[in-house]
Amino acid sequence: MPRYQQLANELAGMIAQGALRAGDRLPSVRQTCQSRGLSAATVFQAYRLLEARGLVQAAARSGYFVSAHAGSAQSPTRPSPASDAAPHTISEQIFELLQSSRERGLLPLGSAFPATELFPLERLRLALGAGMRKLEPWQISAELPLGLETLRRQIALRYLRLGLRVAPEDIVITNGALEALQLCLQTVTRPGDAVLVESPCFYAALQALERFGLKAIEVPTDRAEGADLQAMARLIAQHRPRACWLMSSFQNPLGCTLPPHKKRALVALLEAEDVALIEDDVYAELHHGADPALPAKAFEQRGGVMHCGSFSKCLAPGYRIGWALGGRWAPQLQRSKLMSSLSSSLPAQAALAEYLQDGSFDAHLRRLREALARQMRRMAAALAQHMPAGSRVSEPAGGYFLWLELPDGCDSLALLPRAREQGFSLAPGPLFSAQGEFAACLRLNCGHPWGPAWETAIAALGDMARAQLAQR
Amino acid sequence: MPRYQQLANELAGMIAQGALRAGDRLPSVRQTCQSRGLSAATVFQAYRLLEARGLVQAAARSGYFVSAHAGSAQSPTRPSPASDAAPHTISEQIFELLQSSRERGLLPLGSAFPATELFPLERLRLALGAGMRKLEPWQISAELPLGLETLRRQIALRYLRLGLRVAPEDIVITNGALEALQLCLQTVTRPGDAVLVESPCFYAALQALERFGLKAIEVPTDRAEGADLQAMARLIAQHRPRACWLMSSFQNPLGCTLPPHKKRALVALLEAEDVALIEDDVYAELHHGADPALPAKAFEQRGGVMHCGSFSKCLAPGYRIGWALGGRWAPQLQRSKLMSSLSSSLPAQAALAEYLQDGSFDAHLRRLREALARQMRRMAAALAQHMPAGSRVSEPAGGYFLWLELPDGCDSLALLPRAREQGFSLAPGPLFSAQGEFAACLRLNCGHPWGPAWETAIAALGDMARAQLAQR
Repeated sequence: MPRYQQLANELAGMIAQGALRAGDRLPSVRQTCQSRGLSAATVFQAYRLLEARGLVQAAARSGYFVSAHAGSAQSPTRPSPASDAAPHTISEQIFELLQSSRERGLLPLGSAFPATELFPLERLRLALGAGMRKLEPWQISAELPLGLETLRRQIALRYLRLGLRVAPEDIVITNGALEALQLCLQTVTRPGDAVLVESPCFYAALQALERFGLKAIEVPTDRAEGADLQAMARLIAQHRPRACWLMSSFQNPLGCTLPPHKKRALVALLEAEDVALIEDDVYAELHHGADPALPAKAFEQRGGVMHCGSFSKCLAPGYRIGWALGGRWAPQLQRSKLMSSLSSSLPAQAALAEYLQDGSFDAHLRRLREALARQMRRMAAALAQHMPAGSRVSEPAGGYFLWLELPDGCDSLALLPRAREQGFSLAPGPLFSAQGEFAACLRLNCGHPWGPAWETAIAALGDMARAQLAQR
Repeated sequence: MPRYQQLANELAGMIAQGALRAGDRLPSVRQTCQSRGLSAATVFQAYRLLEARGLVQAAARSGYFVSAHAGSAQSPTRPSPASDAAPHTISEQIFELLQSSRERGLLPLGSAFPATELFPLERLRLALGAGMRKLEPWQISAELPLGLETLRRQIALRYLRLGLRVAPEDIVITNGALEALQLCLQTVTRPGDAVLVESPCFYAALQALERFGLKAIEVPTDRAEGADLQAMARLIAQHRPRACWLMSSFQNPLGCTLPPHKKRALVALLEAEDVALIEDDVYAELHHGADPALPAKAFEQRGGVMHCGSFSKCLAPGYRIGWALGGRWAPQLQRSKLMSSLSSSLPAQAALAEYLQDGSFDAHLRRLREALARQMRRMAAALAQHMPAGSRVSEPAGGYFLWLELPDGCDSLALLPRAREQGFSLAPGPLFSAQGEFAACLRLNCGHPWGPAWETAIAALGDMARAQLAQR
């Protein structure tokens, strides 16, 4: 085949696959000559052939562009690359299972995110432009490892409302709470160390431990009042952990909240044993009642608590802005941030600083909390109606997750493909355990406005669970 | 002291320190009662006392605000927390030295960043709003671990202009090139592995190796033509490294570029020895001549090259958007991204996708390249005039760094505090070496428009170097 045809076919293939799309400019003839080692005549011939096939059009002095109707209408979906790679661990296998159920068409019963429509996206968009306009040029090009000072001050003011006096200089802005967690872990642990986590606990924490070569020590956790402190004390004596990672309020997945006296006792225990508490408090603003939940951080005596927050769940999904307070490890945490990612994306920081300054955050939070509480009530009612006898459901005072314990004999992992056929996703219990426990449990997302599709999905889930029990 | 006075004094202290500033709202009386366990009367008394002192003002139905003229005019600067923490390694010590010379008032001769005014910040700001407006709601709340498809397609089109056929699905958007580097390292190494790096090399790479428990094997590197491949082959036989991290074009700090035949030989060597090449190509777009430098990636036969790029140096400082191509490790790289940070900040991605689509990137790059080349010529001329005899200066074909080798006997670390006194920062040679070599060398930043202040700084640097030589 002549070389011009080879080139034309290759480009036609990219157009067919959607890698090149309507309006895209082809590389210039000069660029293509250089990059392929072809003569200009050959490249011109290839481009003219594509033009003759109706795939590209020449524009005077601007080169060649892909035609409006060339190629596939849809974006191509290649087979998931995950299938090529052998996962190393059980938690990764389970995680890939979960990923595969994250398709757009599915009702997000297993998702970790609330509905987009609950957030003030248009106001945030306006705040992006306004916030960036206010930056001085040096702020744009300089490394700002701790993050924008205006944003750190707004976060310090939120702490002050809880009675916590936090200096803006002690706050490190991170790429979401996930980076905050990782920076905290890296600051206080070395590979091989043991780390206490709740059981069940948020799967991303288990993955982070795996990634840093840390050993997860699972603490039995009550679905109403959180971690069992007696058990924790025994596990500390046995495993000498360096850190404890937990969510003290509206925990993911249980929704549990440690009562204030347990938060105080937790901090006292960990400070006495020299175990760093990494408190992941990303649902803090989502209390359904009028009063906020005080973080465990409020009870520290010796700076033993690292506190992580985020705007992803309460204000700005996709902006990926979280933060961490390092307690007595603050200097090391700051160095860790500098070495790990220099700084966080400036536009998102500027937008949040601008939005928080204008004072409408509280009104948004009131609406959001009411919506989440309402949706949770609706889902709890549907579960009461549709689940088999013997099922139990958590009763969180905040957040947007319900934890469903189906009767023994139900297998949540086996429900996953069936739910997918019925058009909804699920987050099965074993995802939330390093040992793969909680086989009969599911985390359910109440972060979306209730409607018939949700009622139908819950009814279908009940039927599927009963069918499993019938087959025992 | 009565409790209301204690509270008032505490708040007055925060106002004096700038933690609370003009216009900030104090926590509501109700919030403060709850958070401090005080009666409403006590809190009111405290607030009225602050009002009487002129520090706060009450606004009808909105609570109390810090008065316009209360507090310090300036943001408080606390002593750097770095001084509290014992650095663990020599490279950290050096790094902290460098940090301390990054003050705003200093002429940024040692900085790693070009001048803000060289970038189309206003157009990017407009692209932020426009790009976010075009997103569909599901794109905002969903996890998009690979990054926005529109942005990945634009990056694929840039590769195509170099003759590289890259599928958008194989690109992972990262939080700057620094995350790209770390994800690549984590994908192909385990703690304890050896990794080849150039000598000298960019200090952030040395820090990343330290952080992941990897051993840096330094490859002698020519200041014109890059890594010594014979030496590299010997080091591979000796140390069996798992990866090689290098900058193949316009390297930081030398400015060197491997000629195409050396890039081809490098890839052949590494693929034959099963050493992953992590190619950091963040200066790729900053070629001073008309023709781009082809990356080593273009010569791979077996997918052995991971290619990292960034918009931070050529388009959008502060946006923290980079990317990585995983080569044959693409599936593992994607999983690594998902587990490490879920996804990158959406507003920055949307803005860049929008900007790249509108087609003005090339015109911006032409202006930027011309400015950098011009500034580099001016600085080279000033160095020729002012440096002591026996000094040597690199002659890069791109980027914005010059590498200055002062005569033996000069000590660049000792120059640092003197330069600071004279009002400019420096990046001393030992920063760029795991062994602390290159004592007589400096990396100089030509990324700023030339002017008398720069001429003066270079002249002062020459005087300081001569003074060192005179004391030998």
